[in-house]
Amino acid sequence: MMFDRITLIGCGLIGSSLAHGIKRKSLAKHLTVVEKQDVLDRVRALKVADEVTADATTGVAQADLVIICTPQSAYKVVAEAIGSHIKSGAIVSDVGSVKKAAIDAVQPHLRSEVHLIPGHPIAGTENSGPEAGFAELFQDRWAILTPQAHRGSEYDAAAEKLKEFWIVLGSNVATMPADHHDRVLAMTSHLPHLIAYTIVDTCVKLEDTMQREVIAYSASGFRDFTRIAASDPTMWRDIFLNNKDAVLDGLQRFIEDLMELQKAIRWGDGDKLFDVFTRTRQVRRSIIDQKQHIPEENKKRD
Amino acid sequence: MMFDRITLIGCGLIGSSLAHGIKRKSLAKHLTVVEKQDVLDRVRALKVADEVTADATTGVAQADLVIICTPQSAYKVVAEAIGSHIKSGAIVSDVGSVKKAAIDAVQPHLRSEVHLIPGHPIAGTENSGPEAGFAELFQDRWAILTPQAHRGSEYDAAAEKLKEFWIVLGSNVATMPADHHDRVLAMTSHLPHLIAYTIVDTCVKLEDTMQREVIAYSASGFRDFTRIAASDPTMWRDIFLNNKDAVLDGLQRFIEDLMELQKAIRWGDGDKLFDVFTRTRQVRRSIIDQKQHIPEENKKRD
Repeated sequence: MMFDRITLIGCGLIGSSLAHGIKRKSLAKHLTVVEKQDVLDRVRALKVADEVTADATTGVAQADLVIICTPQSAYKVVAEAIGSHIKSGAIVSDVGSVKKAAIDAVQPHLRSEVHLIPGHPIAGTENSGPEAGFAELFQDRWAILTPQAHRGSEYDAAAEKLKEFWIVLGSNVATMPADHHDRVLAMTSHLPHLIAYTIVDTCVKLEDTMQREVIAYSASGFRDFTRIAASDPTMWRDIFLNNKDAVLDGLQRFIEDLMELQKAIRWGDGDKLFDVFTRTRQVRRSIIDQKQHIPEENKKRD
Repeated sequence: MMFDRITLIGCGLIGSSLAHGIKRKSLAKHLTVVEKQDVLDRVRALKVADEVTADATTGVAQADLVIICTPQSAYKVVAEAIGSHIKSGAIVSDVGSVKKAAIDAVQPHLRSEVHLIPGHPIAGTENSGPEAGFAELFQDRWAILTPQAHRGSEYDAAAEKLKEFWIVLGSNVATMPADHHDRVLAMTSHLPHLIAYTIVDTCVKLEDTMQREVIAYSASGFRDFTRIAASDPTMWRDIFLNNKDAVLDGLQRFIEDLMELQKAIRWGDGDKLFDVFTRTRQVRRSIIDQKQHIPEENKKRD
């Protein structure tokens, strides 16, 4: 067993998938899941935890690994509640999409002997809630860890152990500073979501007949956007509030590029359009061709 | 056999898929494919046409149905070349994405006894060229026809026949005026493509390291956009040039909505974000729930 006791706080899509994965891979002797009172029965019905409780303080008391899986807006309250109850040498991690904000919300409430190592599995579906989880969610996906610098050898060993945890769950692991993670994710994930939400909202505001037809004849393009724009509203509100600077910077670059294309359309500049559409095509090829040069020790094992 | 002789002008993804489908469903006694000289051997290698030629005028001379499958920028030149060679009572159609522009480019070059009935199969893949085509491309997809109003009973009968043609190919058929088609498609397809092209181009302009990481960690979101932004550059250049007004109108609405969300992020207005993200979620449900109320006579037959 990698850990004696793991405690998950929050059991939505990610928390529940972690619970399934921990059980499947026998990663803990004892698994505790903390959830709100009115969700406890749904969590118990999954039959993946040894203990299901609404009491976060007793839930974390003996844990070797605590993973916060709530919406990021709850991190501060959770950390305040559990901080002084976590035992020395334990690892605290999370699964949120913005890492700098995660550290800011949680670190001040932990004692110095507790190791905060934020994490972010790049995995999800458009479904949410305890029943949406499944053990294979992390299979072949990236888990990004953002350990803090200069915190000593015990901390580094804890980070290695957490890396191994994600590898056993089937993920490839990458490690980078929190603020760098936030800038990369602003481009790969946050900005695309913002844009998808916007265009679907633009459609919602069309007059009724038009809106019905846009939905009826939605082809590749709009249909893909509706899937993205069906993601969990609470999670995405928190992402935009927590990664404001990087998202606004990415958005500004996007708008500048959009204005260039708008101008090309308005003035009938076909060559400009053709040039842009040709170079964007290369990016797809890069993704398809990409031999993921993942160091062997960071790679999920088959 | 529904038609004695069908001639396809252009044999890219759509033209080639039509050729495969026409052969598979025995829709014509004789199928001619017109292509540029340097592509003829690749078209012959498909073994789907009875005649493959670079000479458009002889290619269309005896056809009962001529379908223009070239990029829309070539329509005018093609129509000038073939217009006077098409026999009385024949149907001329196309597969382009902008219908008003198709009529404007082709109609002036046809004699009045020839029936121009524009069409648009909402189907495609990210591949192009003769080898990319396959008979099932139109299966369960919409084919939109935009017949012109008040052109007499022979014209209406021809439109019915063309509708039947698409139904046999496996499509559901919708009929609407050309300019209405163009406004609907601007929202469902053209604007989403413009936005996907833009965000992928924004990524291309990032400094090298950042760009590599955006590609490496591209999750749902950016990865979907790269697929859309890998679509054929010539076709999409032509779409934006031909459907300029509707695209610019849609784009303006989109930018207004984007500015509202930008403001909400800047000022930390979580309630506003949550409201928008909640109502966009409904659109996905509409698409999934949608019982396609297609009139029986417009429906593909199993």
